[in-house]
Amino acid sequence: MPKPPLPAELDRFLALPNPAVIATLAEDGSPHTAATWYLWENGRVLVNMDHGRRRLQHLRSDPRVSLTVLGADEWYRHVSLEGRAVSIDPDPEFDVIDRLARHYTGSGFQRRDRGRVNALIEVESWHAWAGARAWTG
Amino acid sequence: MPKPPLPAELDRFLALPNPAVIATLAEDGSPHTAATWYLWENGRVLVNMDHGRRRLQHLRSDPRVSLTVLGADEWYRHVSLEGRAVSIDPDPEFDVIDRLARHYTGSGFQRRDRGRVNALIEVESWHAWAGARAWTG
Repeated sequence: MPKPPLPAELDRFLALPNPAVIATLAEDGSPHTAATWYLWENGRVLVNMDHGRRRLQHLRSDPRVSLTVLGADEWYRHVSLEGRAVSIDPDPEFDVIDRLARHYTGSGFQRRDRGRVNALIEVESWHAWAGARAWTG
Repeated sequence: MPKPPLPAELDRFLALPNPAVIATLAEDGSPHTAATWYLWENGRVLVNMDHGRRRLQHLRSDPRVSLTVLGADEWYRHVSLEGRAVSIDPDPEFDVIDRLARHYTGSGFQRRDRGRVNALIEVESWHAWAGARAWTG
């Protein structure tokens, strides 16, 4: 799989509010997937979770993740990023989850009664497809 | 996580031609994700891969998978299925890939010059979300 940085065309694609699915590893090493919002910032992926999410425990015991990002209007194009969580920090003022919510919905995050946690993911390799072909930008 | 069978409403959702992302385990145990077509048949998931795909090697060495299915028009609703590949078989007549292609595109699969392989996935547990809440059907 290619290494970062990604071609400019893929970089622009990842900056859009696309649907995405993140995979983490459960305690027994099995894969766990969930839909997620993400922000693409300076070649890294920023995600945010409710503090009770299982995948937060997963990331704390094994930081390896894979994220597949689908085109918002059609999933003919998709990009997968493999890497690891390099920091996991609370989001006490809801700064990141508000940025995510505005990016995806246009307004701030509604629910303010539960703790949120950020994970910053460093990308180690990627692959991308446009239809039946590799998408190289 | 709940065990199968899934509630009827989720069963109907999974029968639609939804975008999906499958996670498998690489040789070193790291998660690998890719967009995939799937068929939901009798409570099992049928997927099909080009015979050269890395995730086919993954499934052969460790059958554990996780699949997240997103709503086709909006990804407010999504369902994740965890389980394992219980059979991996060639698709020499392109029967399954043609069924998948018709389900998703309305016509048969174009590319007939490369081998295809089916994997049938038995679901062991699932979880589903509708917006910020668990979706229980």
